[in-house]
Amino acid sequence: MGKYLAISGGIGGAKLALGLSHALNPAQLTVVANTGDDFIHHGLNISPDIDTLLYTLADLNNTELGWGRRDETWVFAEVCEQLGMDTWFRLGDKDLAIHLYRTERIRQGASLSQVINELRVKFKVRAEIVPMSDTTGATIVESDIGTLSFQEYFVKNRCKPKVSKIHFAGINEAAPAPAFLQILDDEELQGIIICPSNPFLSIDPILSLPGIKEKIKKSAKPVLVVSPVVDGQSLKGPTSKLMHELNLSCNVLSIAEIYHDIATAIIIDTSDKFAIEQIEPLGLSVLSTNIIMNELEEKIELGRQLIELCTSL
Amino acid sequence: MGKYLAISGGIGGAKLALGLSHALNPAQLTVVANTGDDFIHHGLNISPDIDTLLYTLADLNNTELGWGRRDETWVFAEVCEQLGMDTWFRLGDKDLAIHLYRTERIRQGASLSQVINELRVKFKVRAEIVPMSDTTGATIVESDIGTLSFQEYFVKNRCKPKVSKIHFAGINEAAPAPAFLQILDDEELQGIIICPSNPFLSIDPILSLPGIKEKIKKSAKPVLVVSPVVDGQSLKGPTSKLMHELNLSCNVLSIAEIYHDIATAIIIDTSDKFAIEQIEPLGLSVLSTNIIMNELEEKIELGRQLIELCTSL
Repeated sequence: MGKYLAISGGIGGAKLALGLSHALNPAQLTVVANTGDDFIHHGLNISPDIDTLLYTLADLNNTELGWGRRDETWVFAEVCEQLGMDTWFRLGDKDLAIHLYRTERIRQGASLSQVINELRVKFKVRAEIVPMSDTTGATIVESDIGTLSFQEYFVKNRCKPKVSKIHFAGINEAAPAPAFLQILDDEELQGIIICPSNPFLSIDPILSLPGIKEKIKKSAKPVLVVSPVVDGQSLKGPTSKLMHELNLSCNVLSIAEIYHDIATAIIIDTSDKFAIEQIEPLGLSVLSTNIIMNELEEKIELGRQLIELCTSL
Repeated sequence: MGKYLAISGGIGGAKLALGLSHALNPAQLTVVANTGDDFIHHGLNISPDIDTLLYTLADLNNTELGWGRRDETWVFAEVCEQLGMDTWFRLGDKDLAIHLYRTERIRQGASLSQVINELRVKFKVRAEIVPMSDTTGATIVESDIGTLSFQEYFVKNRCKPKVSKIHFAGINEAAPAPAFLQILDDEELQGIIICPSNPFLSIDPILSLPGIKEKIKKSAKPVLVVSPVVDGQSLKGPTSKLMHELNLSCNVLSIAEIYHDIATAIIIDTSDKFAIEQIEPLGLSVLSTNIIMNELEEKIELGRQLIELCTSL
């Protein structure tokens, strides 16, 4: 049984992870999630990208809000507001339970990997979800309003500050999670898929972990990158705004340039087909297809094509 | 402006505290609450008796359940149950917010006294609510099923175990809260009222704090005890079951005997009037009146009589 590794941030990555989990026997899929966004809020350990994956793969995600759980209620948050507590990161009543579970288990000495594995079993998710590290390298954003933690930038300030630099605190001392290293060494590994997540905020933290890029290169498995950019725009979130601030053109060629040292192929949208001849000189195969995954069928279809591509490369 | 100190446990005490806060200008009232029941649950600092007082005095208490907040919802608790977490101590969505507030403020270095003062201001409670101590002496119950923390005895095992002994861990090292000591020394103090709470589980922890009994005696202020027993039964909770297990008769005479060394007067229900001549030889004044406080008017009326008695003694 071949295995596949998906490297993912939150929402965009979770869409593809869901497609892959349907295109494969879900037990063939390991999703490694960004934990650079993780933070402690009101004393609770919160892992936004992992939770998005968990809820999406468990079919419990809130597609209306785009984050959190479906049919969420906000009774707790309302009282917090009345008490004058910080409520810029909104905690739903249902969502809160998994934060408390995680916080308690970590205090008891469990690793984040263990906790996430327990949660995905409880939520009947059959694909493996692995945090990039049990010892987080926190994403730090340098901006025109000062140094911000990821959530201060992303949620509290709604990505409005102009970003000059992104770095990952303590990343050189952070150990990749054991299951992450294990899947990279697994002889059954058939391919690595970099999901259409933000390259700077979601994927770079994972690839910046000590030894990860080298291990990916050494694995000699196909590395497919699904472009987070379509027709000069990011599909979701601040990717396109960030690319401008970091003096990069927001197009699929820039995405190919960012990943060309580790990627085997890039998957771009049909609307960006014209860029194929600019990308190929970088040494990347290019597949142009529909990568806008609104419907479940589209997610599964893209998943199928990626698996096929891994086999053919 | 005369001041009054009420010494209280949870529900029964809160009823009288509410009556007193209406019978007085609430700023004249200080309620010192038992914290022997306090515990940490899922990493949250929980103070059941204080919260009952807070909710009752803020007119937010759940009279249907007899504990917690009115119009409570249980979305969080349901998910906790699905996750297989301990749910014997049920945390409502609204209630949870004040536990998180307290836990965070204590972690930030605030004392429990400070936190409770903040909360009562936020809840617009004008009477002062003071924890007996910022360094809790936890109530421990020795029973036929072993040594239990208070909440294990009271909530988890619903007071079913047979009790042989009650003690208060670390009570000799626990310091009474500063505001508790202050009110006992206050020249404007006109009287001390021991609420109809459980003598063993709610009042004894408070009176067992180092120096407290001595300070009460030294204050030479009237000390009124409102009997938690009416017609041979406790009005609420396990008082009567406990008295039997501790080989005490469950009647107002026993209550008078428990408190006779510090009390000036005992307030008993009219139905227990016959016991007056047995009690008076203990050196206590006795007032017999209606002490069953179902309606707000009854609570206020009892409050008024107690204030009057303090003045006349």
